[in-house]
Amino acid sequence: MTRKIRLGAFLPGGGQHIAAWRHPDQPADGATSFEFHKQLALTAERGLFDAYFLADGLAIAFGGGIEGGNAKVAGFEPVTLFSALAPFTTHLGFIATASTTYEEPYNLARKFASLDLISDGRAGWNVVTTATESAAQNFNLDHQHPHAFRYRRAGEFVEVVKKLWDSFEDDAFIRDRETGRFFDPTKVHYTNHRGEHFKVRGPLNVSRSRQGHPVIVQAGQSDDGRGLAAQTAEVIFTAHQHIETAQEFYRDIKARARGLGRNPDHVLIMPGVSPFVGHTLDEAKEKYERLTSLILEEDGLALIKGLTGGELDLTGADLDGPLPPAPPTEGMKSRQALIRQIADENNFTIRQLYQWVASARGHFTLVGTPATIADTLQEWFENEAADGFNILPPWLPTGLNDFVDLVIPELQRRGLFRTEYEGRTLRENLGLPFPQNRWTLAQGAVQAAE
Amino acid sequence: MTRKIRLGAFLPGGGQHIAAWRHPDQPADGATSFEFHKQLALTAERGLFDAYFLADGLAIAFGGGIEGGNAKVAGFEPVTLFSALAPFTTHLGFIATASTTYEEPYNLARKFASLDLISDGRAGWNVVTTATESAAQNFNLDHQHPHAFRYRRAGEFVEVVKKLWDSFEDDAFIRDRETGRFFDPTKVHYTNHRGEHFKVRGPLNVSRSRQGHPVIVQAGQSDDGRGLAAQTAEVIFTAHQHIETAQEFYRDIKARARGLGRNPDHVLIMPGVSPFVGHTLDEAKEKYERLTSLILEEDGLALIKGLTGGELDLTGADLDGPLPPAPPTEGMKSRQALIRQIADENNFTIRQLYQWVASARGHFTLVGTPATIADTLQEWFENEAADGFNILPPWLPTGLNDFVDLVIPELQRRGLFRTEYEGRTLRENLGLPFPQNRWTLAQGAVQAAE
Repeated sequence: MTRKIRLGAFLPGGGQHIAAWRHPDQPADGATSFEFHKQLALTAERGLFDAYFLADGLAIAFGGGIEGGNAKVAGFEPVTLFSALAPFTTHLGFIATASTTYEEPYNLARKFASLDLISDGRAGWNVVTTATESAAQNFNLDHQHPHAFRYRRAGEFVEVVKKLWDSFEDDAFIRDRETGRFFDPTKVHYTNHRGEHFKVRGPLNVSRSRQGHPVIVQAGQSDDGRGLAAQTAEVIFTAHQHIETAQEFYRDIKARARGLGRNPDHVLIMPGVSPFVGHTLDEAKEKYERLTSLILEEDGLALIKGLTGGELDLTGADLDGPLPPAPPTEGMKSRQALIRQIADENNFTIRQLYQWVASARGHFTLVGTPATIADTLQEWFENEAADGFNILPPWLPTGLNDFVDLVIPELQRRGLFRTEYEGRTLRENLGLPFPQNRWTLAQGAVQAAE
Repeated sequence: MTRKIRLGAFLPGGGQHIAAWRHPDQPADGATSFEFHKQLALTAERGLFDAYFLADGLAIAFGGGIEGGNAKVAGFEPVTLFSALAPFTTHLGFIATASTTYEEPYNLARKFASLDLISDGRAGWNVVTTATESAAQNFNLDHQHPHAFRYRRAGEFVEVVKKLWDSFEDDAFIRDRETGRFFDPTKVHYTNHRGEHFKVRGPLNVSRSRQGHPVIVQAGQSDDGRGLAAQTAEVIFTAHQHIETAQEFYRDIKARARGLGRNPDHVLIMPGVSPFVGHTLDEAKEKYERLTSLILEEDGLALIKGLTGGELDLTGADLDGPLPPAPPTEGMKSRQALIRQIADENNFTIRQLYQWVASARGHFTLVGTPATIADTLQEWFENEAADGFNILPPWLPTGLNDFVDLVIPELQRRGLFRTEYEGRTLRENLGLPFPQNRWTLAQGAVQAAE
């Protein structure tokens, strides 16, 4: 089978661009409208996307004080929202973000396993360590744990969750009404995990789904983040401005995965792309300018403050001057570096910087026609920079509709994207292998060795 | 308006009676079938039930070893399941059980607020402290915290969750595209909670629903449990075998609520009832005998062991002899006492005891015709024993269908139950008041005092 581009869609109901809600196409109350999210899911499935993706935070992302222009202050919790959306779709995957720092493995394993059953094998978990002071302060802490601690805990957390997901072998359920045997006790397994951070006996009280267990997704770009991703992730969400850095990242991750004994084809790398699509380049540029013109200064500054670690106060700074240095962060180290890089490379003023990152917070912004956008995606896909892309439509539903109606047909014409879903589960559509239950595998391995 | 009976329905897909799954009417894989749960929700709404109710545990309820007859070993997590069911219904409430001992207030507040938005104001939270050793061992503990500690934590937990739910006043969102003001910063509030167990800054990143916030439900019957319920609960789920003890409980809770300055009419007391309904008494008895005959001895013993605190090993005991004493428990103290009471009052042998409690784990089992069952419900309702009932159909869907098709029309004929939903939200249907946001109220109180 020819290799195909994989596509995820980031579809927060409030829109991606910070001024999206001010655009007349975008429902101003989209963030809290279930009906709107349902329409987005149906459109993503019509576009044959692999998955609907949602980021998540465990605090309101106020940049400084409480700004009044932020449309993302309140919305749904992703796992409950995706549970509600799954029954209206049949093939679309649902990748929800959830935190290893502020959850417990048993609870997290359970809710994702439940989403995986409700969707009949279409769930994914985007593993994050949650890098904000404001989240720490919602969980009994004054300050967040150091970056390295969070990643050590994350590594163990994912291990425990995967063990819990294997509590029941796939043929554990007999359900024999005659004998009264509902399940085979030899195929149910205690977890018995004891590590640095967790002590979890198990078993989990949710069984495996049609796809075994949810797809593991990761987005870390720091050295700790890359290590965790190479070890555990099946899909990696990443942010790059240039094909060169994307290639460096791609090759590094694939090499790390190979070094850990993993098949590098089972680690899909998907950079984020924020597309402004026009029938002509001028139309695309107009769309970009239109949204840019809707950004309020205070919201732009709050965005920069948040993306650089939350400690950089730009109140009173010259917006048409350069970005001052930011203090080091225990938060999203790699995101802080990326923002700095964008400012430096483009000689952006503060104002130009927030205008540029407003559409996708540092992800690659593409302004063009279906052909030029497809050219770029194809170049990245065919040159070890990407196995697919996470599409972040700047505003909704128009940004998504434009991509589905204009860019996807172009990718299909080039033979780069599916014309129908290959499988029923998220794993099948992503071309990822079914994860054999470790207990079944252990027995199978003995038999194979005989 | 005449006072009406409120009805909740306990509808675990695996059935309530421990042998339900062996009954030919019950889908053997009901516990993990989303479609089956959807059919149950639709039937409950057809029956005009106030709410679909689900219990929950954070461990597999193995009585001793790993028994093979237990159909409740694996199923959905309630909040994700209810999120998926809500869009298929329009009036039915959804009351999910969740733990104050093994969750964090921010996460719990968030998922319930999200379910409340998805269902447009039909969510309820059944507050439990989770009383099993096996759950403790899934959350980094060797043994569970003492009963009194769990209840102190629960009291503070509910307080924090309710504060978080008030983060946004109901008119906080302006969404003015022209000025770029999405919300009014003076109507968003930090929680700033600092207590014995929790430090939570807030605000919550989910806004309030049409009903303000989810209905608070409680089921504690010990002195600690009654105290918590009288202070915080709007609905109380309780277990009684006789009208006299139900009346004692009812009057005690109402007096405690009144003593705390609450309107006792806003604390609804709903005992559990497990009905076997027949057109004749003989038919009802046959239904009871039929299910009873399907209980395996080992499952019956595991049930008794679990209900008496998990420490009573009956292996080798004479099943036709009396129940031996059980060691004191830090688990469900009141449930242990209730099981003992049932055994003593009825002079039950071990076998008779497990046959009796198999249908509803100590809740009131009624075997009768629509008229005799309605007589009992009416007697309890009109004599300070109940404001309504939680119906626990022993097996599904037949036990639910029987109640909806036979008993509900009888209650309606007597003018005791609604013939259509009164409102759109769970609160409106239960006749509970809209909870004013504490911040709006604080300002309103000042104005009222002027």
